[in-house]
Amino acid sequence: MPKISNKGQEMPESPIRKLVPYAEAATKKGRKIYQLNIGQPDIKTPQGALDAVKNHNIEVLSYSHSAGFESYREKLAGYYQKTSIPVEKDDIIITTGGSEALLFAMGSITDPGDEVIIPEPFYANYNGFATASGVKIRPIQASIDTGFALPPISEFEKLITEKTKAILLCNPGNPTGYLYTKEEVKQLANLALKHDIFIVSDEVYREFAYEGAVHHSIMSIPELAENAIMVDSVSKRYSMCGARIGCLVSKNKEVIATAMKFAQARLSPPTFAQIASEAALETPQEYFDDVIEQYTYRRNLLVEGLEKIDGVKVAKPKGAFYCIAELPVEDADDFARWLLEDFEDDNETIMVAPAAGFYSTPNTGKNQVRIAYVLKKENLERAIVILEKALKQYNQQN
Amino acid sequence: MPKISNKGQEMPESPIRKLVPYAEAATKKGRKIYQLNIGQPDIKTPQGALDAVKNHNIEVLSYSHSAGFESYREKLAGYYQKTSIPVEKDDIIITTGGSEALLFAMGSITDPGDEVIIPEPFYANYNGFATASGVKIRPIQASIDTGFALPPISEFEKLITEKTKAILLCNPGNPTGYLYTKEEVKQLANLALKHDIFIVSDEVYREFAYEGAVHHSIMSIPELAENAIMVDSVSKRYSMCGARIGCLVSKNKEVIATAMKFAQARLSPPTFAQIASEAALETPQEYFDDVIEQYTYRRNLLVEGLEKIDGVKVAKPKGAFYCIAELPVEDADDFARWLLEDFEDDNETIMVAPAAGFYSTPNTGKNQVRIAYVLKKENLERAIVILEKALKQYNQQN
Repeated sequence: MPKISNKGQEMPESPIRKLVPYAEAATKKGRKIYQLNIGQPDIKTPQGALDAVKNHNIEVLSYSHSAGFESYREKLAGYYQKTSIPVEKDDIIITTGGSEALLFAMGSITDPGDEVIIPEPFYANYNGFATASGVKIRPIQASIDTGFALPPISEFEKLITEKTKAILLCNPGNPTGYLYTKEEVKQLANLALKHDIFIVSDEVYREFAYEGAVHHSIMSIPELAENAIMVDSVSKRYSMCGARIGCLVSKNKEVIATAMKFAQARLSPPTFAQIASEAALETPQEYFDDVIEQYTYRRNLLVEGLEKIDGVKVAKPKGAFYCIAELPVEDADDFARWLLEDFEDDNETIMVAPAAGFYSTPNTGKNQVRIAYVLKKENLERAIVILEKALKQYNQQN
Repeated sequence: MPKISNKGQEMPESPIRKLVPYAEAATKKGRKIYQLNIGQPDIKTPQGALDAVKNHNIEVLSYSHSAGFESYREKLAGYYQKTSIPVEKDDIIITTGGSEALLFAMGSITDPGDEVIIPEPFYANYNGFATASGVKIRPIQASIDTGFALPPISEFEKLITEKTKAILLCNPGNPTGYLYTKEEVKQLANLALKHDIFIVSDEVYREFAYEGAVHHSIMSIPELAENAIMVDSVSKRYSMCGARIGCLVSKNKEVIATAMKFAQARLSPPTFAQIASEAALETPQEYFDDVIEQYTYRRNLLVEGLEKIDGVKVAKPKGAFYCIAELPVEDADDFARWLLEDFEDDNETIMVAPAAGFYSTPNTGKNQVRIAYVLKKENLERAIVILEKALKQYNQQN
């Protein structure tokens, strides 16, 4: 039997998916599971986006431009301009999800053996993209005690070598919910300029900033224009995860020209989803106001609930819809599996994402979990009650 | 300014896209261009597929399974079973176009520095996927004089080294239109088994076989089950290029498990397009009968037209909707540009794809072009007239 590749063997399994077989088995037993483990919002997709697809008048579903509809890029540039990101349509390539934008960015700026610095914990799929590109991740640990603020800039500088091509950020952070301050973004920008490296900023949660907090995009620093690459997506902003539309944005013409070669090799992003995404740009402000109110409420409910549980520590998120919680357990991986395999309260249980998979440093974050607050009030309340009961029972048994 | 990657610099530009700026300039001058250069059919997408999307009742456009809708994979397995490909839903991963299936296949079986043997001329984007994966293509030249039949199997064997991971086929071939015989497929299978390598077979044109010719899938050879990977797509079969839905198919469980890790890293294929693709499976046979009749007619019209032009040699295609034609010019690249920049007949011209970009061996196929017969009768007839006039004028000037 022919052998699969080393790369294929090294590809990490998603820490979220690892639990799926246990969840499936629990569901088969008739157990109800509250899913706190994935960032799949229950928020309705804007009706305008859904209707635009219903009303399509396509006869031949042909390839679109490899960079995406021109009309869409034009309007998207307008959206960014309103958030003080001075980009034009030609600075934007529409991609199949933020995932593809990350792949194009990695492919355009790194070769196998190159290094990218990422504050950890970070979005677990960065590991997959790095492995696929043969790139080494150099993690810098952020701490739950500072709410996962940017580690000292000197820590970044220590790791920069000739092989360092970029610093990769997620702002606001998945899984931390941390929103970088203007000062932190500025510090990173100065460092990137000093060492002539890229900053790749994953800003797919840009609209999710709470209590008046302001999101500072890497694209809003004029001096960094040649060094900044933004990754964005419609998935979370419009609750359109299934569209698979994102974009890569940069003022660096060479980056765009290179990423375009990757874009042309895969022909074009999906047409129906582009129709939906273009229409989504017309979503009225009230939609977002409602969504932010909803998430602020859920966040407060979750954080207050978690803080009341003995031995649980939580970093209050300022953005996105995740938080990292430290639990009074030794091995959150084991606890998460136990929740699905052995625990039930009134035939219900919860599913959480063990946080170790969000760290690149081995044996780190082992007592932490990521919780997504994407459930409605009653379900979130019930999930917290279940967590509290489960922790008690788990610790009595072990 | 930070540097882009070596890989990024080496990414080939699509031979088809290179001419786009000239075409745009010609269009600006008000010139009408008959596009023989791309495989974008003018055939209508099945109404059932379009209607399924119109009638969607989605409220939250959420992620689908990373391997694609289970219902779709189930029905797709049924479609393959009818064409004597004995696969089940778990042997199938739905991808974002055939392009992504190729990337997953390459990622799963090759590491940087590995080699893949491909009969040339071949689909130009294979170069892009190889560069992105750091894989070296070892070409074996097929000849227009044999209609681009499989080169002698001994030629393949000569190139096999420890680094050889696969033979990549396109059947029926883009750009050649060649349909491999049962005997040729069998020979390749035996070779793959002997050397324990994979055969990756791109069968996206599987339905396009003319005059009763039969398509022989690599998946229909039971002994090859562990070595065979098929790449497929809805793009051509249902004239749904803009859907961006394809699939990777293999009975090799390790290949599927590995490709699934790549699939999970990018979350899921596009939802609307899966709805369309699942519905497309219900397309009545008459649709295909009409399409095949249409393409057979166009192929005959094109080939007969080309054969009448002085100095033109053409390999009559048995499948797909392309042919390679040898022209009485030294440099088809220059001729193709000249057609757009300097030539017009009654303010009309044609666009063809220079074939050199479909060869991996330098300075090969320089007097060849790929012609896609995706235009309706009148347009195709007119395009042939233009080609004849243009060749005369070009050769008088040069």
